[in-house]
Amino acid sequence: MNGAESLVRTLLASGVDTCFANPGTSEMHFVAALDRIPGMRCVLGLFEGVATGAADGYARMAGKPAATLLHCGPGLANGLANLHNARRAHSPVVNCVGDQATHHRPLDAPLTADTEGWARGASAWVRTARRASEVGADAAVAVQAARTSPGQVATLILPSDTCWDEGGEVAAPLPVPVAPEVAPDVIETARRLLLSGGQVLLLLGGPALTERALADAGRIVAATGARMLAPGNNARVARGRGRFPIERVPYPVDAAIRALAGVRHLILVGARAPVGFFAYPGKPGRLYPADADVHVLARPEQDAAGALALLAEAVAAPKVAAPEYRRPEPARGPVSSDAFAQSLAALLPEQAVVVDESISFGRALFSGTHGAAPHDWLQLCGGAIGEGLPLATGAAIGAPGRRVVTLQADGSALYTVQALWTQARERLDVTTVIFDNRRYAILQHELAAVGANPGRTALDMLDLGNPEIDWVRVAEGFGVPAARAETMERFNDLFAASCACPGPFLIDLAT
Amino acid sequence: MNGAESLVRTLLASGVDTCFANPGTSEMHFVAALDRIPGMRCVLGLFEGVATGAADGYARMAGKPAATLLHCGPGLANGLANLHNARRAHSPVVNCVGDQATHHRPLDAPLTADTEGWARGASAWVRTARRASEVGADAAVAVQAARTSPGQVATLILPSDTCWDEGGEVAAPLPVPVAPEVAPDVIETARRLLLSGGQVLLLLGGPALTERALADAGRIVAATGARMLAPGNNARVARGRGRFPIERVPYPVDAAIRALAGVRHLILVGARAPVGFFAYPGKPGRLYPADADVHVLARPEQDAAGALALLAEAVAAPKVAAPEYRRPEPARGPVSSDAFAQSLAALLPEQAVVVDESISFGRALFSGTHGAAPHDWLQLCGGAIGEGLPLATGAAIGAPGRRVVTLQADGSALYTVQALWTQARERLDVTTVIFDNRRYAILQHELAAVGANPGRTALDMLDLGNPEIDWVRVAEGFGVPAARAETMERFNDLFAASCACPGPFLIDLAT
Repeated sequence: MNGAESLVRTLLASGVDTCFANPGTSEMHFVAALDRIPGMRCVLGLFEGVATGAADGYARMAGKPAATLLHCGPGLANGLANLHNARRAHSPVVNCVGDQATHHRPLDAPLTADTEGWARGASAWVRTARRASEVGADAAVAVQAARTSPGQVATLILPSDTCWDEGGEVAAPLPVPVAPEVAPDVIETARRLLLSGGQVLLLLGGPALTERALADAGRIVAATGARMLAPGNNARVARGRGRFPIERVPYPVDAAIRALAGVRHLILVGARAPVGFFAYPGKPGRLYPADADVHVLARPEQDAAGALALLAEAVAAPKVAAPEYRRPEPARGPVSSDAFAQSLAALLPEQAVVVDESISFGRALFSGTHGAAPHDWLQLCGGAIGEGLPLATGAAIGAPGRRVVTLQADGSALYTVQALWTQARERLDVTTVIFDNRRYAILQHELAAVGANPGRTALDMLDLGNPEIDWVRVAEGFGVPAARAETMERFNDLFAASCACPGPFLIDLAT
Repeated sequence: MNGAESLVRTLLASGVDTCFANPGTSEMHFVAALDRIPGMRCVLGLFEGVATGAADGYARMAGKPAATLLHCGPGLANGLANLHNARRAHSPVVNCVGDQATHHRPLDAPLTADTEGWARGASAWVRTARRASEVGADAAVAVQAARTSPGQVATLILPSDTCWDEGGEVAAPLPVPVAPEVAPDVIETARRLLLSGGQVLLLLGGPALTERALADAGRIVAATGARMLAPGNNARVARGRGRFPIERVPYPVDAAIRALAGVRHLILVGARAPVGFFAYPGKPGRLYPADADVHVLARPEQDAAGALALLAEAVAAPKVAAPEYRRPEPARGPVSSDAFAQSLAALLPEQAVVVDESISFGRALFSGTHGAAPHDWLQLCGGAIGEGLPLATGAAIGAPGRRVVTLQADGSALYTVQALWTQARERLDVTTVIFDNRRYAILQHELAAVGANPGRTALDMLDLGNPEIDWVRVAEGFGVPAARAETMERFNDLFAASCACPGPFLIDLAT
């Protein structure tokens, strides 16, 4: 058995059975091993950022890591931005990077680069395999590292000779450390704060945003008068009718500061203390009041859901039902963010997975869709735009049978537009809605926010309308059927039809 | 004057007047400064790899660096693969990366990353600006570093407050170190080797591939019986009728070893000793005979052209005329690599710039086009595929008035396909020929080369035909007119027409 075969067999034994790949020459033995060993689903991406973003989306829905397969340092580099997003989302990813043979690396051939150096900035764990006989053991540790709570990017670099040499040994799966429990005295502190009468805000992130955890948080809030919020960007939120709704810390600094004004005790539950996405001249970086006390109920790697359940009991919160929402009628007439939210709430299928990289157009969408059918809502967590289409691709593979709906800003979509081809190839049930405003609208806001008064040159730099991108042609070129909507009626029809048909579809929504 | 303004003014004072940009929030003051200060041409890319690849192409044709403008660590990461290619091509690039404000970075907002760490692997020089008053001086040093022979990537990271704070000071241009001359005793050693009667190979790279340097090398070869070759991948080669033709070290290891068999003295002239692009089981990494002596006439940063001129005099080589080539007739009938080379030799406009990322289909194209009109031939130097379309974009801006012809493999084109939009936006005279074989053909060769016997899974991973990509729609979607050719006659017509019309055009060539 060669090293590549021991790698594939070890990954399968450790429960990793999906691989998002963009291979090159140094990975040919891995590719060949996939032929000989059944059980690994290989999904090809036309660009490495598609593969890494898909691995992020897969992990969020499947609750376990996929492998990637990337090619040398530059191939890894192309996947780094979405690995950064995966890192911020706490998604487990087993990031496999083929590289020059150990004896070839000193010759500094053209593709040779500092693969380890580039991997480190996006990975919690990095290892370069030394020989075929150790590849299996390396892979088992990589899976363990990836699955270590709250989920990490583990990068295993595989020089080509460690894959083609004989002597590979399959390694047994390693135990996955469970999320540490929260200590009783921490629960007790939180209980006292909640009953103190001061203004308390529970900031819920990561594992505190499941249906069950939100229900416990909802009980606590109802019983104590505290508030709850989620961070601005979240890996996965359970939402829709029958679930406890939660709002998010707004993106604009001024709005965020208003939303957090008056908070005396900020209790973090699987979340970090909220800070501005960017700094702005004369504005604070921290979004919560300077005199607020920050308490940690659960760190991101701890069992936040368990802590909320204990806390709900500790404050003797009675069970309460989630607020009732009526499914609205689809909106009619001109396209707007509010109208879109209304139609989405009306038409979203049961158990849909919403992937939200909607940026400027999307600010009303989260608040406006509490009344939709039960669904999960996934966001870009690291701020590196260009993850929406890959994230949706991986989510569809991680959650078969559920419709994925991608709410996608046009400028951001263009970074990894190649993901559409993978959606077509794998016949994934993904409906992509492009919010087609033909500009980097968010940057026009930002330019104003930094106090600049834009002239022609600046506006040109933020304009995507010269020439206009024909999204229907681009999508069809990649094999995804598509149509344009300029009214809500047309959108409603296209959206409902796409949700009723298997496979991908793209709606170019003029906004 | 704020820091951003001092940056733009210093770049202009140092001769950097073109900026390939994909800005974000942290760069808004740079964008605003561009409005206030005339003289900087800003070229927007929809993806950072387009901006960095374009900066590479620009530098090769303009002979001076452009600036880039990228957004935070992940934006830099998206540009790294083509910065790696630029580094290998010895292209000067002033790589500007906006980042979190100095006081915001400790808060670890979502987009915060190890920007310096990622920059290092692709840069010869990295600096993070500390304060507005130093940004001008930092920029002047960055330009100097970029222009230091043989040309380097210099990365200047600009926290947003160093751009928006007042106190910016414009710095004067710094002297550019000239390429060091080659010492007389080194010339003398080479002279003796050439006249020794042993088999001598001159391997010419970088600055030894200009028209003048090739003429001197041609004289030397004619006078001494030595041979000359270029590396497999070159930043820029002067070619076509009236110039001295040079062949390249072949890409396949076996062919390369045959081409270099019998060499007793390998003289490096601005080139490095040839090694395999990748290692293969049981094959050597070095492509030249183990008993060959390797001599260095000029290191890459030295004045290789000057050394060749001195050496030609030293061996008393008479002036010789370049061999005569007849422009062939365009090929007719079915599409093949040989037929394509013939048509290209027939139809290439005077002073065209050929960008070659042709991979498997393109192996015959270089040898088959010595008889074309005088032109420059640019290649991917770092092996990170996905540079062809951006490189052509930058080359067109660096060489206005010359037709750029991109010979582009389909799989590689898909990495940075967004460059087509920039070509449309800037109305660049670029004719892109997609070699549309609907698979990663090079990897099918490589899979065989590593001794694997591919089955269904492996072949699927190397197949781009499911679904087929409709290149005409993709190009039109990005605003570039396009058409498909399935015969040489149709190609000839489309190619000639596109060269006669201003602006970009794409030919989807079925191969």
